[in-house]
Order: sequence, then C-alpha cells, then structure tokens
Amino acid sequence: MQQQISVITLGVADLALSKRFYVGGFGWAPVFENAEIVFYQMNGLMLGTWLTNALAADMQRCGLSRPGAFSLAHNVRAEQDVQQLLERLAAHGGTLLRGADKPPSGGLRGYVADPDDHAWEIAFNPAWPISADGRVTFGL
Amino acid sequence: MQQQISVITLGVADLALSKRFYVGGFGWAPVFENAEIVFYQMNGLMLGTWLTNALAADMQRCGLSRPGAFSLAHNVRAEQDVQQLLERLAAHGGTLLRGADKPPSGGLRGYVADPDDHAWEIAFNPAWPISADGRVTFGL
Repeated sequence: MQQQISVITLGVADLALSKRFYVGGFGWAPVFENAEIVFYQMNGLMLGTWLTNALAADMQRCGLSRPGAFSLAHNVRAEQDVQQLLERLAAHGGTLLRGADKPPSGGLRGYVADPDDHAWEIAFNPAWPISADGRVTFGL
Repeated sequence: MQQQISVITLGVADLALSKRFYVGGFGWAPVFENAEIVFYQMNGLMLGTWLTNALAADMQRCGLSRPGAFSLAHNVRAEQDVQQLLERLAAHGGTLLRGADKPPSGGLRGYVADPDDHAWEIAFNPAWPISADGRVTFGL
C-alpha cells in the first residue's frame, strides 16, 4: 500500500470556535464547509473538523475521550516563527501547553491545544526540508 | 501560514505491536526507528509512532486518554481494496470498528482501530483524486 494519509479528521464541539483557531490563528482557508464539517486542503491531504457526535456515529464508536494520545505538527521556516505562532494560536482560542524551547534533536518547538484539546506542535526543524508546495521530508 | 501538516504522532504502548500493524498490515517501511519512536515517510508528511509516555512528556501534558476524538484516513484506488485492507489490518493486531459500506457522500469506507485504539478510515472516494506520488485533493 502507498505510504499515504488522505485525511486527518478532528472531532469538534463548536465549529465556530474551531474556525477561529484554524482560520484566525493559523490563517488557513476552508476548501469546503457545511453545518457539520469544515475541510482544509493541506499539503497533499485534508484536515477535517467534524462535529464529534457525527464522527463517532460514522466510526460506530462511542466514548471518545480527550485529550487523545496524539499530536499534529506544523513546521515553520524560521526559528522566530515558533513562539509567535504559538501566541497567535493561543489568542484565537488555543491553550498553550509548552512554550517554545529546544528539543534534544535540535531546532525549536512548543505545543498548543486547539479549542477541542487536540494538540499541535509548532516546530522549527532545520533537518527536515519543506518544499515550496509544503511537502516535508525526513532528515537527520 | 502555509496549509501544511508536518507530522502526525500517535502515542503507542508497544512499538513491536504497532509495527506489526503498520509494517505488516499496511505494508509501510519505516524511514527511521530507535527504541522509542518509529517514523514513516508519508505523502509529504511524517507519521510518527512514539511511546505514549515520551510523547506526553514532550507535550508536557499528562492524562492522555483513549479512544481519542479523531480519525486518520487512508484512501485506496479501487472499491474492492477497502474490505480487503480492513481485514489485513485486523489480522495484524487491528480491531474492526465498521465493515466496508457506503457513506452518504458516495464511495465506500470502513474503520479499523490500530493496537493503541487510534482509528483509521479505509476509504474509496472517486471524487478525491490521488496523484501518482500520493497527494490527495478535495473534490465533490
């Protein structure tokens, strides 16, 4: 099977609060939205934000809990962008989990939770190239 | 900010069980691994599987719970691949959540949880093109 992820779908309680974080905070534009879901076209995959009850019904799985044992990362191109973006996300309904500091592997990173407790790492990692169209490649 | 996700990091309890699902089930090859993390190079982003305690320490966030309110999706190119892949993943330590059936939007999909309760949707969606190198684009 191709090493490919098509969608990351996050359960959300309130689409307006979620959009404030993703549109106002990250500055991203939806590619589609209706009363229960918003899709953002990302770097070769979709980010979906879907009312949690609808997601649970689609998965046929109840008892979804939070915070989940996962994180998403958005890598930035300059070290000084990390703390600045963390603060902008916190100002748009996010909750700062960890301010920007240096991980053992180098670079700089911090974490912020979105309005539904989904964790985002904001990272500067000079070892991982980002192409002009946003493709990120592993490096050491 | 660029509409870009660099990494999806999933918390795992046992790397060997997790690898059985991702390597044996999906047939994916790690790009890097050590005693606490495995990275897979995906379509312009990384999938990371990291011991949950290490992820929680890095996020400075305790009390991670499961199942989380999110799902990941892997889209396949043919309708008959959906049920077949669900079964292969279930045979490699996954738990079937929903067998393949037709969603309201068309196509075919089912859900399987990985050994750490992270949900994967396996979908055939003829409206969403997949490029040769795995980039997925929104469509209606």
